[in-house]
Amino acid sequence: MPDFEISILGGSGGPFENSTQCFMLRSTHNTRDTQLICVDGGVGLGSIATMLRLDKNTKVVESLYENEEEPIEKYVDNTMLPQLVRGFPQIITSRLRGNILQQAMELYQKIGEYYITHPHMDHIAGMIMNSPAIYEPSVLSKKYVKGLPFTIKPLNDSIFNDIIWPQLSNKSLGRLDLVTLSQQIPHNSSSIPEWNIIPFEVYHGSKVSDLTAHVSSSVYIITNTRTKNSIVMCGDLEKDHDNLQEPKLLDQMWSYLAKNVPLENLSSIVVECSNSSSIDERRLFGHLSSNKLLDELQVLRDKYSISSGLGNLKVIISHVKMAYLDKDPRLTILDELRTLAHTIRGLENIAFSIAVQGYTFTV
Amino acid sequence: MPDFEISILGGSGGPFENSTQCFMLRSTHNTRDTQLICVDGGVGLGSIATMLRLDKNTKVVESLYENEEEPIEKYVDNTMLPQLVRGFPQIITSRLRGNILQQAMELYQKIGEYYITHPHMDHIAGMIMNSPAIYEPSVLSKKYVKGLPFTIKPLNDSIFNDIIWPQLSNKSLGRLDLVTLSQQIPHNSSSIPEWNIIPFEVYHGSKVSDLTAHVSSSVYIITNTRTKNSIVMCGDLEKDHDNLQEPKLLDQMWSYLAKNVPLENLSSIVVECSNSSSIDERRLFGHLSSNKLLDELQVLRDKYSISSGLGNLKVIISHVKMAYLDKDPRLTILDELRTLAHTIRGLENIAFSIAVQGYTFTV
Repeated sequence: MPDFEISILGGSGGPFENSTQCFMLRSTHNTRDTQLICVDGGVGLGSIATMLRLDKNTKVVESLYENEEEPIEKYVDNTMLPQLVRGFPQIITSRLRGNILQQAMELYQKIGEYYITHPHMDHIAGMIMNSPAIYEPSVLSKKYVKGLPFTIKPLNDSIFNDIIWPQLSNKSLGRLDLVTLSQQIPHNSSSIPEWNIIPFEVYHGSKVSDLTAHVSSSVYIITNTRTKNSIVMCGDLEKDHDNLQEPKLLDQMWSYLAKNVPLENLSSIVVECSNSSSIDERRLFGHLSSNKLLDELQVLRDKYSISSGLGNLKVIISHVKMAYLDKDPRLTILDELRTLAHTIRGLENIAFSIAVQGYTFTV
Repeated sequence: MPDFEISILGGSGGPFENSTQCFMLRSTHNTRDTQLICVDGGVGLGSIATMLRLDKNTKVVESLYENEEEPIEKYVDNTMLPQLVRGFPQIITSRLRGNILQQAMELYQKIGEYYITHPHMDHIAGMIMNSPAIYEPSVLSKKYVKGLPFTIKPLNDSIFNDIIWPQLSNKSLGRLDLVTLSQQIPHNSSSIPEWNIIPFEVYHGSKVSDLTAHVSSSVYIITNTRTKNSIVMCGDLEKDHDNLQEPKLLDQMWSYLAKNVPLENLSSIVVECSNSSSIDERRLFGHLSSNKLLDELQVLRDKYSISSGLGNLKVIISHVKMAYLDKDPRLTILDELRTLAHTIRGLENIAFSIAVQGYTFTV
């Protein structure tokens, strides 16, 4: 039985502000109520309200390129289609009452934690702007915003600083707690107790003001401690550097995964692929492109070192940049990944899909 | 002839992240090209793309409350309906080419300046997340982000700081300039040279961490120097304080207006009214409610001191908070304003409307 339900509130790499990264996760074993966590918070309540209104039976993908709507089959691997839901699954929506706004706020109330990958605006903006709804009298909630130190310190210093946003994290209010996690130390989810979550620091480009200064991001490995199934949720990231003086951060994460999670327990990897392989390398700005993601999957294949390679692993692509193009870059990147992977030993059977906004995947 | 076209990219007071405040302004005298400025930047490209797709002939308002769509007549004064356009006027869209994404980016390219009222997230988030599109090779642009010192310093220190967002304002890149304006000093728009813009500091609540520390916001009076017509664009604001030690900031703005802009040249006031008059005063958090807005309009009436009162002044209400309610609070607030104003000498004929997202007003 699959463990993880992932609702894609937003999955693009900008620059459009209404589709930035936010994944809402639920345990499929939780049949009584619907405690939720989010990985990143680029969008939020606005996307929830839109998703509550979607026609579940019309499985199309909104696009700003050739056609306003494209068939879902172009974006999602065939093997994942039977369990794919447009909007939210029945179990999430069936207990919500009232008009769409009230339903959206009731669903928002069930989000107990945000696991933020890094403090860039497109991964936090919705979470921040939604936060007054925590104090909405009819649907009061309590939320934890969690992340590695390079995420939580800026949220404290630059965001909830009573300048950019009211200090709703103030202890006297007691409803929004910023929690600092430790690198590679397992953390128990407070909302979904059977989930264990490990944060890994990774590289994500350099500062404009100092090209030698690294920017960091995170990958979360989430494990159901009962079934042992795991999912890998990535924020923005780039390949490790060739510089021998620097630790190989992404490599450490792949090593941990291959050592601790048997391939049959690896439910899915949700990973960014911002750019097509045709991009000028100097314009990657701390992201992956199709060919670089395949390099990484080969690293993982070698670490697993089993004859089947990565088998039919489900890889879900997020954070595609919406560039000024004629054709939807999500389709270009998916096509590149599938075509190239088909020629690489051990990657031939990977099931690639796009993290399409407005859909819930089950893996 | 009316001077000002105001496209409402977003006009709500949150907590939904996809409708936060951003007004795109154009001069109706500019018939050759379409240079634009924005007042605030809560949303941006995402709303532009949505507006480009709207059916101009179906004049409905999206609501999350009783009905998904309501007739526009419920939200906009009858006298303003004939010139109201759903989406953008023909003159803005007729020269845009390509798919919706390309059209949205071409329109974004024409935004030369943002006048930010204050640095709260819901007034800047879209502007920030859209900013990489300035560097999109096919539609390169140059933009100025302008505001009073309490706005620009936090944008430098807390936002474009290579932590929350890449320092795209770095001089070496040369395409995004942060410009500090001076309180009550007229400033010439670089995009629309016939417009003169004066910023006024106003009060906007206090800090959570220190209830004695004020939060500031701005009002912009924009004047067409040729026709002498003016529009007042407000950010979030609250009434002046009773404390005699503190300057009466909002009062200074009303005084300037009455002294310098004849009532027949006052095209419109766009002003926040976040809350219904039924709200507990302790929960205003630096905003207005219907009754407090009417207090302010009475102050203005007294300063003009003419027998007609404020006549049929056009007042456009923004920033209504989307609270957990059965009925759309925009309709409640509009009803309160109209009902109460009808009983107040000199305010009887004011034309109240809501700044409905997705529409372009001409005043």
